[in-house]
Amino acid sequence: MFSGLSAFPLTPVNATGIDEKSFLSLLARLTMAKVDSLGVLGSTGSYAYFTREQRKRVSTLAVQHADGIPVMVSIGATSTDEVLRLAEDAQHAGVSALLLPAVSYQKLTEEEVFGFYAEVARNVSLPICVYDNPGTTHTEFSNDLYARIAALPNIASIKIPGVPADMHSAAQRVSALRAQLPAEISIGVSGDASAGNGLMAGCDVWYSVCGGLFPNTALALTRAAQAGDFAAVVEQSQRLEPLWTLFRQHGGSIRVIAAAAALLGLAEENNLPRPLRALSSEHQREVLQVMRSLELA
Amino acid sequence: MFSGLSAFPLTPVNATGIDEKSFLSLLARLTMAKVDSLGVLGSTGSYAYFTREQRKRVSTLAVQHADGIPVMVSIGATSTDEVLRLAEDAQHAGVSALLLPAVSYQKLTEEEVFGFYAEVARNVSLPICVYDNPGTTHTEFSNDLYARIAALPNIASIKIPGVPADMHSAAQRVSALRAQLPAEISIGVSGDASAGNGLMAGCDVWYSVCGGLFPNTALALTRAAQAGDFAAVVEQSQRLEPLWTLFRQHGGSIRVIAAAAALLGLAEENNLPRPLRALSSEHQREVLQVMRSLELA
Repeated sequence: MFSGLSAFPLTPVNATGIDEKSFLSLLARLTMAKVDSLGVLGSTGSYAYFTREQRKRVSTLAVQHADGIPVMVSIGATSTDEVLRLAEDAQHAGVSALLLPAVSYQKLTEEEVFGFYAEVARNVSLPICVYDNPGTTHTEFSNDLYARIAALPNIASIKIPGVPADMHSAAQRVSALRAQLPAEISIGVSGDASAGNGLMAGCDVWYSVCGGLFPNTALALTRAAQAGDFAAVVEQSQRLEPLWTLFRQHGGSIRVIAAAAALLGLAEENNLPRPLRALSSEHQREVLQVMRSLELA
Repeated sequence: MFSGLSAFPLTPVNATGIDEKSFLSLLARLTMAKVDSLGVLGSTGSYAYFTREQRKRVSTLAVQHADGIPVMVSIGATSTDEVLRLAEDAQHAGVSALLLPAVSYQKLTEEEVFGFYAEVARNVSLPICVYDNPGTTHTEFSNDLYARIAALPNIASIKIPGVPADMHSAAQRVSALRAQLPAEISIGVSGDASAGNGLMAGCDVWYSVCGGLFPNTALALTRAAQAGDFAAVVEQSQRLEPLWTLFRQHGGSIRVIAAAAALLGLAEENNLPRPLRALSSEHQREVLQVMRSLELA
């Protein structure tokens, strides 16, 4: 399940909690498009803002409505004990894989990060995707640390942050990492703007925010990369540049994707868990203009 | 309660959870020394690693054993809904004040930070200390943002990060902030190495990690500052430089203070919640040497 397009949907909220109806309508878009896997309760899915009970419920709903597509959920939390409880819940919910960030409050030492993955890996029975997102978790991984973690049981994939915009540097980045990892470990790129480069550089999978709302657009790019049609990959990724620009302007993708989902009528305007807020009306209009120009709305 | 020495104790754990006996022995040192207030479940008290139930229990224990000293607890969490639940729990436990960090996962915009404080301030009935600790929360405050927040109901104090090591710059830092705040707002310094400078620069209170384990040492420095004996403040803070050096060497104070508590027989060796780990045996020996040289052990 750690290849192709892994689509990361929002988990929309409304005034009373998780907006299950909206969540299911987002899921339906992904199952209809037949994405390769679902990355539920990722950063885009706001796992870090929900209670254990809410995460259990969303995991269960996702498995029930995945139409056979494998579901991965994040079990991230600051505390190892809580991560182990979340892993148990996710396993009971019937997910196929666990997404595991090293969320920090006190900045973790390298030994603490390794010890954390070792303890969790030893205590679960599902494949783990190591989730490296320093912008949110404030944990950094060296290639050596990746390699030590990849040698643990149950480690199946590594989700790396965006690769360089320069294709030569992107290729070097991925091949240097590949050289240090066991052959069976999948490497996945995130940071949608660099997904094209990441896939062309040899990443196995795109862990995609864009794919969580616009699965056909993300699938087209992914399939072009899988077919080796690099001209098409470059063309499609460049065409989406106005979307990537919005992501950069708003401190990441989540507020833009939340606005886009609302503009499509797929979630309420205020669909992010507070303290996160919807973009201003003016910025929402800019998102709508970009969506129209890219034929995403 | 927002003046003098506010002592921030560890919340030690053991293999089965919160180590209540050790926590109470730490509290007893602080009540015997008669610190001015207790900052329970601060960053040093590992609030970010505990469940709601655990935090409720620790808050209740603290109030029961505070010997009349006012207790402040952190109600920090990434989600506003969870913060409101924690505020309710803390109020039921009988605490005197709430410590409120803006913990981020997705980096918060200034409007989100302000909106967060506004929503919480509106929904509580106790004084709030605004907690600014960018090293753990990754939220930054401008003086303008402080001023907007300070104008909200229930805001009583602001806990600022360390002030500059240069005394002239420290004084400028504090007076510039003071000029923008209502007169009744207390300013508290944290970052133990700069506490002397902060107090001499006019901060009302020292939110102190060192004071959570070595209350008499921290009280002596605080009382010297309150008496205007700045030569004694400088002398005492410089004397403690080997301790501040250890804090810097180990990415902050928490692992050093946890080791010191264990070396004093006040907590188990592994008293931090995982994934945090005890210092190595070699580093523990260095902590012991420093404690002995400073007559702290």
